[in-house]
Amino acid sequence: MEEKVEYSIQEAILYSHKMAQMSKALWKAIEKDWQDWVKPYGLNINEHHILLIAYHLKGSSISEISKFGVMHVSTAFNFSKNLEDRGLLTFSKKENDKRNTYVELTDKGVNLLLEIMETHDVESRQIVKGSLSLKKLYGKFPEFLEMVAVIRDIYGDEYMDIFNRTIQNVKQEMVEEEK
Amino acid sequence: MEEKVEYSIQEAILYSHKMAQMSKALWKAIEKDWQDWVKPYGLNINEHHILLIAYHLKGSSISEISKFGVMHVSTAFNFSKNLEDRGLLTFSKKENDKRNTYVELTDKGVNLLLEIMETHDVESRQIVKGSLSLKKLYGKFPEFLEMVAVIRDIYGDEYMDIFNRTIQNVKQEMVEEEK
Repeated sequence: MEEKVEYSIQEAILYSHKMAQMSKALWKAIEKDWQDWVKPYGLNINEHHILLIAYHLKGSSISEISKFGVMHVSTAFNFSKNLEDRGLLTFSKKENDKRNTYVELTDKGVNLLLEIMETHDVESRQIVKGSLSLKKLYGKFPEFLEMVAVIRDIYGDEYMDIFNRTIQNVKQEMVEEEK
Repeated sequence: MEEKVEYSIQEAILYSHKMAQMSKALWKAIEKDWQDWVKPYGLNINEHHILLIAYHLKGSSISEISKFGVMHVSTAFNFSKNLEDRGLLTFSKKENDKRNTYVELTDKGVNLLLEIMETHDVESRQIVKGSLSLKKLYGKFPEFLEMVAVIRDIYGDEYMDIFNRTIQNVKQEMVEEEK
């Protein structure tokens, strides 16, 4: 945003207030379902998210995990360490990049992730159930394009690239599963 | 949703995955700014949220705070207790409703809240800055109507009523301030 956009402080406060309330409500509903889903496997959301990112990116640096998982670098590192202790991933350095630490899933990590996927009881998810009226109306699940635009602006193109890569990867796997 | 809406498990999983990633990203950006805002006053987000809800609803039950603040009843109660210890709110029972505990802000609580409002540096908020391109395009801040519809479905009409009451209240105060 180079150009100045005019707005009143009042409308900005009102907007900020609404968005805080709405995004908290949306995230808490999703967080609850996510927690309930992965808890039986002795994982918290961040740990599961790390496994997912490392899986979809086919190995990932701690800084990528931090950025895309939206968690502090120290959180990303500490939870990755827990996962390494459980034999679910390994740490490594790359020949051409000694500064970054990379994580890669072990076979045990991949198997656990796939096992968790199979228990993905998506029909019971609040976000899915709560979107069925829009699905009916639109003929497909809503796109939330305003939200995508705002997130793109806040997190940048690199974030969206990783986002799109993981989505493509999920799609690809579905195609392969159907074969 | 009485009527059955058809969808494939694949599209639901993809949708659920996208929404988890996006709503986490959106909420974490908002949470960070909110934390930075209220931390200098010795408050965390939940405590500030409790003060805001009790203020906008002109007194509120713990169960209303839990519902609208999207936090466990025990969280709502424990943080309210902290605020009572600091003299920022008082607990009471109502004559006609002995079962629920109500909280009401003290003058000290109201004053603190108003002081915090005055430091609301809304122009630096990521959610505001990240929405300026849409503001420019639409002529106003985005409405996120798909998100409102999903939240209404998940949390119900009562939640939306409280939501609208607080928004109206914020608007009202702005009008009064301008006088």
